[in-house]
Amino acid sequence: MAYTLHELRAADGRAFSPFCWRARMALAHKGIVPVLRPSRFSDIREIGHGCRTVPVLFHGGACFTDSWDIAVYLERELPDAARLFAGAGDRHYARFLHHWAGTQLHPTIFRTIAADICDRLDPADQRYFRETREARLGGAKLESVRENQAVAVAQFRAALAPVRSLLEEQAFVAGTQPAYPDYIVFGALQWARVISPVPLLDANDPVRQWFERCLDLHGGLGRGEPAAV
Amino acid sequence: MAYTLHELRAADGRAFSPFCWRARMALAHKGIVPVLRPSRFSDIREIGHGCRTVPVLFHGGACFTDSWDIAVYLERELPDAARLFAGAGDRHYARFLHHWAGTQLHPTIFRTIAADICDRLDPADQRYFRETREARLGGAKLESVRENQAVAVAQFRAALAPVRSLLEEQAFVAGTQPAYPDYIVFGALQWARVISPVPLLDANDPVRQWFERCLDLHGGLGRGEPAAV
Repeated sequence: MAYTLHELRAADGRAFSPFCWRARMALAHKGIVPVLRPSRFSDIREIGHGCRTVPVLFHGGACFTDSWDIAVYLERELPDAARLFAGAGDRHYARFLHHWAGTQLHPTIFRTIAADICDRLDPADQRYFRETREARLGGAKLESVRENQAVAVAQFRAALAPVRSLLEEQAFVAGTQPAYPDYIVFGALQWARVISPVPLLDANDPVRQWFERCLDLHGGLGRGEPAAV
Repeated sequence: MAYTLHELRAADGRAFSPFCWRARMALAHKGIVPVLRPSRFSDIREIGHGCRTVPVLFHGGACFTDSWDIAVYLERELPDAARLFAGAGDRHYARFLHHWAGTQLHPTIFRTIAADICDRLDPADQRYFRETREARLGGAKLESVRENQAVAVAQFRAALAPVRSLLEEQAFVAGTQPAYPDYIVFGALQWARVISPVPLLDANDPVRQWFERCLDLHGGLGRGEPAAV
């Protein structure tokens, strides 16, 4: 029974959504090759089931419309495959990271790459993106982020301090092996890598070295999506 | 065989160190009433064993000079008591929070309460505290933090966003029951509560409500230390 994943794509087909990357990595972690259904922002409502965001996963009669729910479902459905959450503690850890990424990482990345995202969207998506995202910037133009990019990059690097300290002690966010906690942080960095040429991390940053290890996971799944130039 | 805990005290004997509070709560979680040995900054070297910080825990011939090592030791030594780390995942979670508190919470709290700490220290400690802590402030006077208190409080509240979102979903940082992840965040807030009258959290903040629950744990151990006025 196929797993079908609807995910967001830019004009040239590149997959850039941080939440969709969490789902892609979680599926790969479970050894599943999903049927991918590319979507633009403009197409999401056509998926049906009241969906207003992606990723959306269909499996048999089940439909999951949130990256967290997808991970929890995969863990429950495939308990014998590699674990996404090694136990209840890992799940609470991942949930904290979910909120941490949403409140501390994604906003600073967005203030770095907002204009780069818009440039790479299908024209059908650009007006929607500009209207909704300029509202998040308090009405400022998307292009205004380019003027403050250095500040946003510095804030992003500072926000990564706890994961940097952790990765000086262990190979992955989840411990000696990668699991869902890693994919949450990975999604944020992959979002930036795929859609924007702005370098977020120094080459000698332990977070960068961990990110390179994550790009190699699951047959180089993440690296298969080209970096923006 | 007694557990002896050396912990930091202010001039009037109040226990305010965030790291010592982690150890106090971890011991109470394991059902242990330690022998407490109050210390000033000036006295720490007299503890011996190369100690330069507190908490320091002695148990039989063993000596632990770091709050993290104390928690790990208690968990190993007392596996049948309530768990501080429900599994490997909880331990990675706690370690992330350890780094998160150290890099995101403690610095913003310090920029709120630095002068209040100094005011309440034993005179023997004040010169040491002023010299070392003004260096952390880039040479600015401790009292200068009072001018920027509102900004620091706002930054602290923003830094708490991920734990706030989590506590809207569950009763404790560790899940349905408190464990070491809670004590890490608790230590930071208890530090401020005991040493400074500055209100860090709104009464309707879910983090404040969780903190009140933590003050009631273990027979009201935390609440037993009076709040600064």
